[in-house]
Amino acid sequence: MAGELSGRRVAILATDGVERVELEQPRQALDEAGARTTLLSIKTGEIAARKFDLEDAGTFTVDRLVKDASPDEYDALLLPGGTVNPDKLRMDPTAVSFVRDFIDSGKPVAAICHGPWHFVETDRARGRTLTSWPSVRTDLRNAGATVVDEQVVTDGSITTSRMPDDIPAFNERIIQEFAKAPHAAAVGGS
Amino acid sequence: MAGELSGRRVAILATDGVERVELEQPRQALDEAGARTTLLSIKTGEIAARKFDLEDAGTFTVDRLVKDASPDEYDALLLPGGTVNPDKLRMDPTAVSFVRDFIDSGKPVAAICHGPWHFVETDRARGRTLTSWPSVRTDLRNAGATVVDEQVVTDGSITTSRMPDDIPAFNERIIQEFAKAPHAAAVGGS
Repeated sequence: MAGELSGRRVAILATDGVERVELEQPRQALDEAGARTTLLSIKTGEIAARKFDLEDAGTFTVDRLVKDASPDEYDALLLPGGTVNPDKLRMDPTAVSFVRDFIDSGKPVAAICHGPWHFVETDRARGRTLTSWPSVRTDLRNAGATVVDEQVVTDGSITTSRMPDDIPAFNERIIQEFAKAPHAAAVGGS
Repeated sequence: MAGELSGRRVAILATDGVERVELEQPRQALDEAGARTTLLSIKTGEIAARKFDLEDAGTFTVDRLVKDASPDEYDALLLPGGTVNPDKLRMDPTAVSFVRDFIDSGKPVAAICHGPWHFVETDRARGRTLTSWPSVRTDLRNAGATVVDEQVVTDGSITTSRMPDDIPAFNERIIQEFAKAPHAAAVGGS
């Protein structure tokens, strides 16, 4: 159903080390559904992408610094994986507070693979049912989450998936979830 | 003091993504102090090293698979960092049980940078005072550790440091700590 995200603004937060397909493929699916996606980062210019964490996989152009962005300007948030990417973002106070404020706004947030580390760093895993790449699961449990091993899981406003193979199911689900959200960002003009 | 680790056998556990200097420099210091170091991994052949996680930094030759090794054969254990390296190791049951059994043996264990994730995965961070790379600290606290921001910290048998800049202090301390340990591995012949 084309256009179901028409007018919605989606923030994508990533930096160097992002797993290419986990940014590119969900972004393409969101764009094709009519969303307007913006790549936020903690650096300007380009970020370096990876395939399976270790192979170079080109770059993405950053649209805007996360420190200059407000959750009020977006309807939904996408957090791709790649091990090094969230590992760097979780050390940046502007990235951490953006994610925390977004979750607390109640608007939909989606994370895949190592992306769920954001919920640990923001202390927003507590009481949630989540999935992730296997290496992150002990950290999620220790942060108070119930961890399940499923392709895609939605608990309230948070949707999570495990790995690149889950991307088709993840994309389908996040389009549904992002479409349900109140059209908040449009209030300030899109 | 040359030779203070004479006859000691030190296991180094690492895989792809290891931060080159965190393996190479402590290994050299241990070798120069007379230790016999063995690189254990979860794969045979070579492992890919990195500089600052993202730059290629050559390879190291694996000496032995960790699944074929026993903590009884070594006097001490070194766990280098690099984000992707411990992220991969913590998903391998043979690596996790080797580290857990080593810690439980009471023999000295040292970890730097992202290496302390091993203490989370083995549930051996609880009640310990540790340091690490900043991104790992929330995971250490959630696993029950007290986290401090110091160059090098020793709590019982576990020594930790934060980053490559700490390597000189880390090397000095681990030589002291590894020298104190009972000469267990020699019992089985070195």
